[in-house]
Amino acid sequence: MAKKKAAILGSSGMIGQRFAHMLNDHPYFDVVAYCASDRSEGKKLADVWRLSDLDTIPGLSEEVIQATATSALIKEGVEVAFSGLPSDVAGPIENDLAEAGIAVFSNAASHRMEPDTPILIPEINAEHLASVEVQKRRRKKGGFIVTNANCSVTGLALGLKPLVDKFGFTEIDVATYQALSGAGYPGVSSLDITGNVLPWIKNEEEKMGLEGKKILGAWKNGRFVDSPVNIMASCARVHVRDGHLEAVFIRDRAIPDAKTIAKELRSFRAKPQKLKLPSAPEQPIIVMDEPNRPQPLLDSYAGTPDRARGMATVIGRIRVTEGCLRFYLLSHNTIRGGAGGSVLNAELAFKEGVI
Amino acid sequence: MAKKKAAILGSSGMIGQRFAHMLNDHPYFDVVAYCASDRSEGKKLADVWRLSDLDTIPGLSEEVIQATATSALIKEGVEVAFSGLPSDVAGPIENDLAEAGIAVFSNAASHRMEPDTPILIPEINAEHLASVEVQKRRRKKGGFIVTNANCSVTGLALGLKPLVDKFGFTEIDVATYQALSGAGYPGVSSLDITGNVLPWIKNEEEKMGLEGKKILGAWKNGRFVDSPVNIMASCARVHVRDGHLEAVFIRDRAIPDAKTIAKELRSFRAKPQKLKLPSAPEQPIIVMDEPNRPQPLLDSYAGTPDRARGMATVIGRIRVTEGCLRFYLLSHNTIRGGAGGSVLNAELAFKEGVI
Amino acid sequence: MAKKKAAILGSSGMIGQRFAHMLNDHPYFDVVAYCASDRSEGKKLADVWRLSDLDTIPGLSEEVIQATATSALIKEGVEVAFSGLPSDVAGPIENDLAEAGIAVFSNAASHRMEPDTPILIPEINAEHLASVEVQKRRRKKGGFIVTNANCSVTGLALGLKPLVDKFGFTEIDVATYQALSGAGYPGVSSLDITGNVLPWIKNEEEKMGLEGKKILGAWKNGRFVDSPVNIMASCARVHVRDGHLEAVFIRDRAIPDAKTIAKELRSFRAKPQKLKLPSAPEQPIIVMDEPNRPQPLLDSYAGTPDRARGMATVIGRIRVTEGCLRFYLLSHNTIRGGAGGSVLNAELAFKEGVI
Amino acid sequence: MAKKKAAILGSSGMIGQRFAHMLNDHPYFDVVAYCASDRSEGKKLADVWRLSDLDTIPGLSEEVIQATATSALIKEGVEVAFSGLPSDVAGPIENDLAEAGIAVFSNAASHRMEPDTPILIPEINAEHLASVEVQKRRRKKGGFIVTNANCSVTGLALGLKPLVDKFGFTEIDVATYQALSGAGYPGVSSLDITGNVLPWIKNEEEKMGLEGKKILGAWKNGRFVDSPVNIMASCARVHVRDGHLEAVFIRDRAIPDAKTIAKELRSFRAKPQKLKLPSAPEQPIIVMDEPNRPQPLLDSYAGTPDRARGMATVIGRIRVTEGCLRFYLLSHNTIRGGAGGSVLNAELAFKEGVI
Repeated sequence: MAKKKAAILGSSGMIGQRFAHMLNDHPYFDVVAYCASDRSEGKKLADVWRLSDLDTIPGLSEEVIQATATSALIKEGVEVAFSGLPSDVAGPIENDLAEAGIAVFSNAASHRMEPDTPILIPEINAEHLASVEVQKRRRKKGGFIVTNANCSVTGLALGLKPLVDKFGFTEIDVATYQALSGAGYPGVSSLDITGNVLPWIKNEEEKMGLEGKKILGAWKNGRFVDSPVNIMASCARVHVRDGHLEAVFIRDRAIPDAKTIAKELRSFRAKPQKLKLPSAPEQPIIVMDEPNRPQPLLDSYAGTPDRARGMATVIGRIRVTEGCLRFYLLSHNTIRGGAGGSVLNAELAFKEGVI
Repeated sequence: MAKKKAAILGSSGMIGQRFAHMLNDHPYFDVVAYCASDRSEGKKLADVWRLSDLDTIPGLSEEVIQATATSALIKEGVEVAFSGLPSDVAGPIENDLAEAGIAVFSNAASHRMEPDTPILIPEINAEHLASVEVQKRRRKKGGFIVTNANCSVTGLALGLKPLVDKFGFTEIDVATYQALSGAGYPGVSSLDITGNVLPWIKNEEEKMGLEGKKILGAWKNGRFVDSPVNIMASCARVHVRDGHLEAVFIRDRAIPDAKTIAKELRSFRAKPQKLKLPSAPEQPIIVMDEPNRPQPLLDSYAGTPDRARGMATVIGRIRVTEGCLRFYLLSHNTIRGGAGGSVLNAELAFKEGVI
Repeated sequence: MAKKKAAILGSSGMIGQRFAHMLNDHPYFDVVAYCASDRSEGKKLADVWRLSDLDTIPGLSEEVIQATATSALIKEGVEVAFSGLPSDVAGPIENDLAEAGIAVFSNAASHRMEPDTPILIPEINAEHLASVEVQKRRRKKGGFIVTNANCSVTGLALGLKPLVDKFGFTEIDVATYQALSGAGYPGVSSLDITGNVLPWIKNEEEKMGLEGKKILGAWKNGRFVDSPVNIMASCARVHVRDGHLEAVFIRDRAIPDAKTIAKELRSFRAKPQKLKLPSAPEQPIIVMDEPNRPQPLLDSYAGTPDRARGMATVIGRIRVTEGCLRFYLLSHNTIRGGAGGSVLNAELAFKEGVI
Repeated sequence: MAKKKAAILGSSGMIGQRFAHMLNDHPYFDVVAYCASDRSEGKKLADVWRLSDLDTIPGLSEEVIQATATSALIKEGVEVAFSGLPSDVAGPIENDLAEAGIAVFSNAASHRMEPDTPILIPEINAEHLASVEVQKRRRKKGGFIVTNANCSVTGLALGLKPLVDKFGFTEIDVATYQALSGAGYPGVSSLDITGNVLPWIKNEEEKMGLEGKKILGAWKNGRFVDSPVNIMASCARVHVRDGHLEAVFIRDRAIPDAKTIAKELRSFRAKPQKLKLPSAPEQPIIVMDEPNRPQPLLDSYAGTPDRARGMATVIGRIRVTEGCLRFYLLSHNTIRGGAGGSVLNAELAFKEGVI
């Protein structure tokens, strides 16, 4: 199949930078436009980017930023847009592109809770992609929006999926230890976080509850049906660059032993693995046996041992005691919980012929 | 009443340094011996101390360290010992002192689970102090050991006390964000914790469960009876100097609203407040209404607004949703969860005539 | 003498907060107005302050902020203003107050290089205060402006003073390790500084050179005469909250040995010490003999051993090798290099009858 | 040419881990033995390694550690050893290997100042390699030791080389901002460095002076002749993982302008570049024009723009004012200043037929 021409929206930001790296030399997509606000127009990517842990790709950072204009993108033949726009401006821009016939894969929260827009995590709810057909009908020119989930619920939902399916757990308590990159740049002041924990992230706990229900729910008869899963979150920011760590507690009458839980998690495979999507991790849920893992610094990206490059959920310290299952879960917030989530979504849509 | 002559064991360490500051010019105790291992013998406190946030007390750091020798302490007329000894050496030394007739108030874990040794938190279980009478009978010379709780369970138990009493909660999930000072010095390597979270602290979760049951339990007919309270903890170390933050989840059928919870916490007063013990905070549980508090850096010591100087539990973000009560709780790990806990215990014992 | 009524400008900021604490219960000044921008008008200080290491002063944080209006301050009888205004707005506001007859003691850079405005450091150039007489004549109502120096040159100039006077050194190389609080709030992004050093602070190196020449220079025949001292600085921001550390190198043909240098520094006393000004440190330059001091975390405030409370320059690691004198120097950037500098200046002016 | 069989000494440590990664699939060397102390014998590398920023190499971390035994290595046919041993044990072990005929490339300080042992930096002093012929004669079996320099002087000497050669500078003042990895693991306590700077690193300043003279000096008539270059260092540890930043000051009567300096640095090429040694950076000295670079976090490894992978010295902020040249210099302390230095040395020796 021919590659689809793609644009990156918000390409000057942290998520945009991730998009640019993940989509470089991509087998399905060919990025022809790096868009950002007028303020960055004409600058090179090198002048606005700040991530340090990305491999230098020859030539990439020399690309010149263009303004975000639907008509120009259409003229350039763009069929797919990856949006790393901030949520406060993403809404109308993404909608505009979809109306113009473009398939938008968005990291922004703006459209997540709309009745015909999926919060897609291909390992969990590939069938939700069918909802874009409703969008296509609603919109005149075949465009649509697919969102990825909030960074703190993405990895959690992925880790919960096999457990919810197999054991029917519904009551989840989760305390998060979230990374600074989740707040964007400049984001959190050094004076606030140095030697500190900030026990509040605006709207985050509510999003985890609501998005969790939609993600783990069903797409039936043309509408989304919520899952009974009930995520009660307490969200805190810690002094970490990348990688959201989460302490998960599940209370249930009948909980199998830790070994059974681990086996269920480790053996989980789903559609992205079967389709061998380019960005899909071989093993979506990695279970570590070491007593002191996973750690954000060591395991967010590597996803030891199989180097999932930020696309797997890493789980460790599985304990079952008197009807309470506890474990720690780690997910890379700007890869699987950000750009990587949308890239995987677009790969699924491409492979399934939706775009 | 005349002041009691006191010794500080482990005075070169972080807890020992806190003891020395809290006991300086104390109305009940007069420190006559600063003890540490032979390695520090003859050095000045100034040469071995490292805490930076303590007010300089003229002359204090010029005191000279002596070896830890029971006979010498007896000769000096020491009646009370405050122990900041590491748990791996505390056991026999503390026992030796108690056998020699000294009242030992210890921060070490060694004797906490013994059947006639209390884990005393005066606001919670002042009546447990009666157990030392059993010890006095067992030991020949009237000495005994009183322990304070593990630093991560102390503040939690204090915050839970009025809720458990009033509403009968028993199932507690708690994820901790624990400070570096809890691991002593040199403790955690900078390479391990910088930009990281360590999701494991050896034996900590087990201690929280076991000590919690004893602390919140009863002293009846000469023995300790466990509380039904069931603390399920997941303990992590974060990049913070002082102050253990904890995300608490309580699931129960009948949970009152957040306002009622807050009122119950705020109005809690107990024996140390009634007795006006010198180190007792006016308000043992401070509730903050700001959406982003408590924070370890800002609130561990100050215990805004009434400046509890590290002796109060600070609670914030109380939320009740669908049968789940969530809040964040903060406690100073080397003050109330360390030296301050034992100082308060000794003050109670003094005032009650036990020493 | 009766206390002077005073106002604090920029009282919501970090320097403003320091002013409020240092001026609380001050023997010469009585703060009657806490001013800030319209945005903060009507709020309590407690709602806008963020420093954690300040002792809580009962009632202080309950004070209500008023807008910055010259006429209102005049009406309230304000004679002295302490300015913690950002340099980009300080210029005209401070000038306005001075024109209205108020004595302004400012931390802002705006007026520092004016020909009749002193950069006052009482231990170094108390005689520069005479320049305000020129201002008084220029202005109609007896008001004037006195500035304190940039935070990175204040402590350095103080440390250099006795050496320059005694040994005539002129060529100074200095590399700084500057604290985050120097950049204000929110200031430096956590993503920029975590695990990093930022080897550039806008205009800082230039200020150190220019201000150094004025501070160490003379006031002669109604004008400032530059010192020949030549400060070549390289300024970097490090991951420290408070306290600017500086590595100083002095190359000179004839350099005495380290012991002589240390003695000269330690024995230095000047006018603030003679006048016993309330904020003056007993010993303006503290010399530490320990091989690994001074350290920002331990020594910025305490100024071991005599607890200078942020008002002394602390010097350590004095080495003289083959014509090169090296040492490390530390100064608290928001106390002596900020609010404390201006408070001391006002105390000098008060005691000398200038206000 | 056939590959040489190689061993890594101290393979469990941070430098050893770097060696293992840099030597994996190396065109000249084939690592057949991963040695460490008896304590690690039989463990897998995966069990003892801790660096997080290294690409996972399939199979590498499964290699099993063997004890450090000369006879075993000889039996295995080892001809080259890379030593990441701590300096306190390296001396006799390295000597033993050299006596047995093995060419040792060492990161340890033990043998650096010996009269026939080079501190080799191939861009600076490739001709010093001739000194090993003296060693070969001294030792019976053709073995020898080549050392790489201390991590803080390596990058500095490289940056100074073209300036010293062209302009004859001799007086260098340098203040360092050194990374935590330079102290090994566990190294610096988190309680010491968090929010702090430690203005002392034992023996470091002395090493910089002495090693600098030898490195920049000559090998003439069978002996090393010191360079007149006089490095006066003040060394501090900052809260950074990797990358030593240094503020350099050079005072000289005749200093060209900044542009000329930059050109000289940028155009510098030497033997490793001519020989196209596998680990040699294309451009040994990278000059950045941005006002706020180089930064340890961003530039230590990438060596923007040409991705030197930690082998280049990165220089920025070149300023010349009144006879004083100032700039910031950055070098990766465990790559060019550690394992990478020795790997490059061995490549030179291999290519030159010395091994």
